[in-house]
Amino acid sequence: MTNYEQFLSRAGIGMRESAIRQMGSVLSQSVDMVSFAPGYPAEDQFPWQALTEIARELLDGADGAVLQYGPTRGYKPLRDATVDIMRTRGISSAVERVVVTTGSQQGLDIVARVLLDPDDVVLMELPSYTGAISAFRNVGASLVGVRQAPDGIDLDNLDEVYDRERRTGHRVKMLYLVPNFQNPAGLLMSLPKRLAVLEWAERRDVLILEDDPYRDLYFPDVSTEAETRPVAADDGAGRVVYLSSFSKTLAPGFRVGWVSAPPAIAARLELAKQAEDLCSGAFDQRVVYEACRRGLLAQHIPVLRAHYQMKRDTMVRAIHQHLPGRVTWTPPRGGFFLWVALDGLRGQDVMPFAQARGVIYVNGSAFFVDGSGHEFIRLSFSAPSPARIEEGVARLAAAIADARVATPATAVSASPASRATR
Amino acid sequence: MTNYEQFLSRAGIGMRESAIRQMGSVLSQSVDMVSFAPGYPAEDQFPWQALTEIARELLDGADGAVLQYGPTRGYKPLRDATVDIMRTRGISSAVERVVVTTGSQQGLDIVARVLLDPDDVVLMELPSYTGAISAFRNVGASLVGVRQAPDGIDLDNLDEVYDRERRTGHRVKMLYLVPNFQNPAGLLMSLPKRLAVLEWAERRDVLILEDDPYRDLYFPDVSTEAETRPVAADDGAGRVVYLSSFSKTLAPGFRVGWVSAPPAIAARLELAKQAEDLCSGAFDQRVVYEACRRGLLAQHIPVLRAHYQMKRDTMVRAIHQHLPGRVTWTPPRGGFFLWVALDGLRGQDVMPFAQARGVIYVNGSAFFVDGSGHEFIRLSFSAPSPARIEEGVARLAAAIADARVATPATAVSASPASRATR
Repeated sequence: MTNYEQFLSRAGIGMRESAIRQMGSVLSQSVDMVSFAPGYPAEDQFPWQALTEIARELLDGADGAVLQYGPTRGYKPLRDATVDIMRTRGISSAVERVVVTTGSQQGLDIVARVLLDPDDVVLMELPSYTGAISAFRNVGASLVGVRQAPDGIDLDNLDEVYDRERRTGHRVKMLYLVPNFQNPAGLLMSLPKRLAVLEWAERRDVLILEDDPYRDLYFPDVSTEAETRPVAADDGAGRVVYLSSFSKTLAPGFRVGWVSAPPAIAARLELAKQAEDLCSGAFDQRVVYEACRRGLLAQHIPVLRAHYQMKRDTMVRAIHQHLPGRVTWTPPRGGFFLWVALDGLRGQDVMPFAQARGVIYVNGSAFFVDGSGHEFIRLSFSAPSPARIEEGVARLAAAIADARVATPATAVSASPASRATR
Repeated sequence: MTNYEQFLSRAGIGMRESAIRQMGSVLSQSVDMVSFAPGYPAEDQFPWQALTEIARELLDGADGAVLQYGPTRGYKPLRDATVDIMRTRGISSAVERVVVTTGSQQGLDIVARVLLDPDDVVLMELPSYTGAISAFRNVGASLVGVRQAPDGIDLDNLDEVYDRERRTGHRVKMLYLVPNFQNPAGLLMSLPKRLAVLEWAERRDVLILEDDPYRDLYFPDVSTEAETRPVAADDGAGRVVYLSSFSKTLAPGFRVGWVSAPPAIAARLELAKQAEDLCSGAFDQRVVYEACRRGLLAQHIPVLRAHYQMKRDTMVRAIHQHLPGRVTWTPPRGGFFLWVALDGLRGQDVMPFAQARGVIYVNGSAFFVDGSGHEFIRLSFSAPSPARIEEGVARLAAAIADARVATPATAVSASPASRATR
């Protein structure tokens, strides 16, 4: 028998499964599971009919390039369209800065490969997005957590952590941020804080990686478009690499995102992408471009805002009804997620009962690079129907009750991991 | 101004542009250029009408998962279909071994990340595929060339090179092979040699990465299906990681390839892919699966064989007519490429004249990891129409004549790079 362990690279040995994707596997094995786990957009909101029409026109054979290999940087008209989209967000980018990616996840991965050497420090919010954690870990970067305040990252802690890392001889290269309706905490970073972070990055000679998939999905009852102004919009000094995606606003089955970076970095991102997949899918890019060009996306986004706001309301109402006083959360002002603290319980303690009751979520600890966060769970309200959201929250309430019977109340404070400082 | 160079990783600094993709950029800038450069399949052979019908049915909205995120390993029925395809090739794989990839290029990339540490040695044929070279280089592997014979890799040289590398303290981890209609040399490795390579890998404790995109495209006038039996088909000891793709047989605009690997490696490949793009495009995978399930692919492949055989004939005839006795080549028995030796000239010497005459190709040196190969050029006959192939060869003949006037006849033998041993 061949011993395969001896063939694995250090990177290969170090790779870990994403907790979100793991829950996706649990989901695919069960029929009546209510899933609050992966942040999937609502399938009944995909503009099926318009997409059918676009596909029919694209596949008429008149333009062979629709199914051919294409440029690594992406289909030029689509790159131009992303420049237009960024302009509506206040960002003046140029097409030379844009690389189309196979979903935003590829953007995270190629940025990691192009910028991060092993042991380079990336500062990440506590909590932060697991897909970014995986991409940065896979190149051996050192991920160091920074506390969050209700209006986004804690600036004092940011500089403290930076100082500590520098004093211990580490190179702090990048700060990763999701300022709009953060995955998982759902927070919206305040506008003054965005400017302060930018000033800090310039002063400390650090790059900012701004990940912005949820910007369009603010909830009009409590947020305004002005409040979602990206950090990149005020980036005079060229400190920000900006990522966004069509996965949440059109459909993730077309794997189309983009990155806008200073040209010297964009050129390297292109090379990294070239070796990863040569180019993103030509057909997918054409469909997305047509959705932009025909105004489909612009018409569709307000519908999505109302839809996800309604689902947030449904989940919040159900929690008030089924879990009064037993969990705490900040109502999200946009995005897909409700970030819930289980008072006196850990997510992993509830999970077996939740699965037995027919509901899943993601344990909060998956989003903390310092080993903490066990008292949190992330609930995605985006995909299930309102009736399923209510059913799922009722099941969750039952699972929490089961867990309280089975688990001593001191479980969280006794957890050694929650005291770790990294 | 921010100094971006100081932010690049060592991997980022080391990345190089693929010569093939570079020629793709040249192509996109000119209207009347005949391109023998990228190995693009013929667009008029894509089954447009059948694909339109498949797309219409998939997008009727009945199955929301068609446009949703999907499992990282790929759409399960498609993975099953690849197992069936491999069975027709003599390979008994199991679905647990299969990971769907975003084109075969992603297979190369994730194999590199999971298996290769910096300075690990990968043995590669002289010449070999540039996309593999890029993927292995990007993880810092040391690429060492092995000579080719007309029936495939030179087994004596293979063991000599292995020995030399071992003696100098290097870990030889992998042998990369394209046994069927190799890109770029077009060679078909003989069946006895395939078995011998497998025996060698077992004896030397080396893994084989077998890249097999062209297997279905053998030319019936000079090849048989039996001659294309993959190395993986006789791999009793589990030495082979096998890659293949739908890009050459259906369409590359759907980015769908697959890897079949021993389960311990497949599990790591899944994790690497997860951080690269979460999953390949759901719609693309569904289309490809439908093309398999409905028998479209099986019906279509014999048509493609005849088509590309006809184009090979066209190119060979044109070379006989326009370049009699001035270049040498082995007629390819399948695939997309004619590998041509320019007697007494280097590809790069002809290139400026070729571009001026309106024809492009890829310089052979791009395919040699030892810095040699300057006397070769790779001509892809797959994409241009027969008339354009004839026109392109006429232009190439004129460019070679131009270059002979401008270049001393000793240019090749005087080139120091061609004497390098690595």
